[in-house]
Amino acid sequence: MRLITLLTDFGVQDEYAGVMKGVIAGINPDVRIVDISHHIDPQDVVHGAFVLAAAAPYFPDGTVHVAVVDPGVGGSRRILAVECGGHLFVVPDNGLLERVMALQPVGRVVRVADPRYCLDAVSHTFHGRDIFAPVAAHLTAGLPLNELGPIVDRPSMVSGVVPRCRFASADTVVGAVVASDRFGNLMTTIDAAAIDRLHRQAGGKPIVVELAGKPIGGLVAFYDQAAEGAPLALVGSRGLLEISVRCGNARQVLNAQKNDVVRVGPASTGHPPGGQG
Amino acid sequence: MRLITLLTDFGVQDEYAGVMKGVIAGINPDVRIVDISHHIDPQDVVHGAFVLAAAAPYFPDGTVHVAVVDPGVGGSRRILAVECGGHLFVVPDNGLLERVMALQPVGRVVRVADPRYCLDAVSHTFHGRDIFAPVAAHLTAGLPLNELGPIVDRPSMVSGVVPRCRFASADTVVGAVVASDRFGNLMTTIDAAAIDRLHRQAGGKPIVVELAGKPIGGLVAFYDQAAEGAPLALVGSRGLLEISVRCGNARQVLNAQKNDVVRVGPASTGHPPGGQG
Amino acid sequence: MRLITLLTDFGVQDEYAGVMKGVIAGINPDVRIVDISHHIDPQDVVHGAFVLAAAAPYFPDGTVHVAVVDPGVGGSRRILAVECGGHLFVVPDNGLLERVMALQPVGRVVRVADPRYCLDAVSHTFHGRDIFAPVAAHLTAGLPLNELGPIVDRPSMVSGVVPRCRFASADTVVGAVVASDRFGNLMTTIDAAAIDRLHRQAGGKPIVVELAGKPIGGLVAFYDQAAEGAPLALVGSRGLLEISVRCGNARQVLNAQKNDVVRVGPASTGHPPGGQG
Repeated sequence: MRLITLLTDFGVQDEYAGVMKGVIAGINPDVRIVDISHHIDPQDVVHGAFVLAAAAPYFPDGTVHVAVVDPGVGGSRRILAVECGGHLFVVPDNGLLERVMALQPVGRVVRVADPRYCLDAVSHTFHGRDIFAPVAAHLTAGLPLNELGPIVDRPSMVSGVVPRCRFASADTVVGAVVASDRFGNLMTTIDAAAIDRLHRQAGGKPIVVELAGKPIGGLVAFYDQAAEGAPLALVGSRGLLEISVRCGNARQVLNAQKNDVVRVGPASTGHPPGGQG
Repeated sequence: MRLITLLTDFGVQDEYAGVMKGVIAGINPDVRIVDISHHIDPQDVVHGAFVLAAAAPYFPDGTVHVAVVDPGVGGSRRILAVECGGHLFVVPDNGLLERVMALQPVGRVVRVADPRYCLDAVSHTFHGRDIFAPVAAHLTAGLPLNELGPIVDRPSMVSGVVPRCRFASADTVVGAVVASDRFGNLMTTIDAAAIDRLHRQAGGKPIVVELAGKPIGGLVAFYDQAAEGAPLALVGSRGLLEISVRCGNARQVLNAQKNDVVRVGPASTGHPPGGQG
Repeated sequence: MRLITLLTDFGVQDEYAGVMKGVIAGINPDVRIVDISHHIDPQDVVHGAFVLAAAAPYFPDGTVHVAVVDPGVGGSRRILAVECGGHLFVVPDNGLLERVMALQPVGRVVRVADPRYCLDAVSHTFHGRDIFAPVAAHLTAGLPLNELGPIVDRPSMVSGVVPRCRFASADTVVGAVVASDRFGNLMTTIDAAAIDRLHRQAGGKPIVVELAGKPIGGLVAFYDQAAEGAPLALVGSRGLLEISVRCGNARQVLNAQKNDVVRVGPASTGHPPGGQG
């Protein structure tokens, strides 16, 4: 038994994800398939990259992750199969794996080139069905990675697509909103390591969070520490800073947008309220 | 082979449910996982309780049901593992299992306490991944229930959260709207047993249904018995009274809200139209 | 191991699809279940017919497809089990299988009649749970098709429900919009064979596409061939003509409706702009 996960921006309204599972079952009937999400914001590689990196570590070693957020489908972008962190990833070469690779040790990278491991007819618009799914199924059935195509030099991979948080000064970290979830919680690019460093830097002094230049308040450890209806910031279950409203919808209440700047630092920054990050 | 079901209010937009499945597969790769629903209205324990009770009986004996509608996550609420009706349930102690327990014989109840059956790092915000999923996986892999933690006295469990319908008089039952489905059908707290009793009481006289004080009409056996666009009430497939509009959306057409009062009784109640049940 | 697919208009908000899986697991615990879609437009048999025909060929031989888009549930419509294209289909007799049967060789058709293969209590409103799911599970467990009930004469099946594209003249094909997907792409009734015939007919002259009487432009092979924000038409991955807007939402941008007429033919048709195809 091997496991394949699917992460796409296809939605579940249509048959796209189901058809990929049919193709997989036709090649390896014993494989289990788990949906990570089919609701990545359409064509949003950055959103996909963060969700994939949050989810993959919770799957067992040897899992094959198929991730298709692929605005370049039908064009010249490469499809890659990548060993990383004890897992395999089948992804377009567009930055979608960038965050996973930043967090986990990378092994071999190959370009998917051998048409024997794709469907006989490859469409221009649905490589998830015609290439990604059959390649993943063959990998779970024991196909060696290097049978898929030539080794790719890691520096030739598309990179720099997924933003990282950065320290604007020794005690202030700046990032951005990636996406919001069903509850309106805002996922940001600021990770737990950055927050830990800030805490050490602050030496007990309060740290405050700003969203698009407006103060959100301090960091809390869990939701109950904020009053109902109050905004709060915490390191969420993904190991990323998240901005929420207790018993409310932060996206709506704070009128937040994707890419809004998030700044975390000492209360005494004197950063003018209303100024843009 | 054992079966785990998942019922949550996480939605499917995010990776939360998929990550729970990854954790389960890492502990027991042979278990099957079925989603009951991830679209319980956010933090609505009552909605979750009714859906869980409607779905669980259709699963085979020995199924482990994981239900996470858990506004108290990270606080002091207990997590319980409960034998009930030949199934196991892993739930927060917040009333979510109340309706299942009202309908099925209850066996042992234990508090989940042993950290060996949780993930090594337990977050403050995602116990579905860190506690519920691994505990359920260990149970399907053969862990005896009492290894999880101490036995809980049933009277100490949170109760009284989930409303039941009641007889306001010998021939009139009063309940409320729980939630609406994709088609706008309204699920109520009034069950088939209450309707049967009313029918016996009425001895053939017509029974009528009111929603928020406004008459809906009589009970029908299936949709085709009402005219197109007409409201109707029937005992739906869950064994609960449902209010629908034939070929229409009852929630919108009747401007219905969660908790709206529903009253079923003889046509001759003289209950003033427009009065709040 | 056998495979069951589910295609319904139930949505995933409620427990309906999950309950069907519970029923199946209780009868045949070894079967795999794949969701094709639960988001067929409510009660839209035509939409369901096109999606089922697009998805089924990608599943392995012997797959049992359960399709429930069934406005007549509880009435007198028949439930059928049909051999077609090496697969089995359990469907209401309402046209839902019409497009699959137009594309694949049809074998035996039987009416589901034997209550031993249904749940003990059959509701008026949820035959997916009470009849379709258990029948499919029994079929995957080895039940011979003809045990379900009497053979049905194919001409007695409901037909003519699902529209086909037609040639209005030797060089012009006329069809309609079936539905739109998550991205707003419009699926039409015009298939690749019709487009191929037009291309042969045109002998290299340009072919143009009209939606509801308004010109969309010419056919392209993939998305990148149109400018950002421009409408385009291509033969999509389903083998059907689709109308899209590059990096946009065609349904919204073109204000398209289900059943809008789509016309494909030579640029020189002189068809007046704005006229209804």
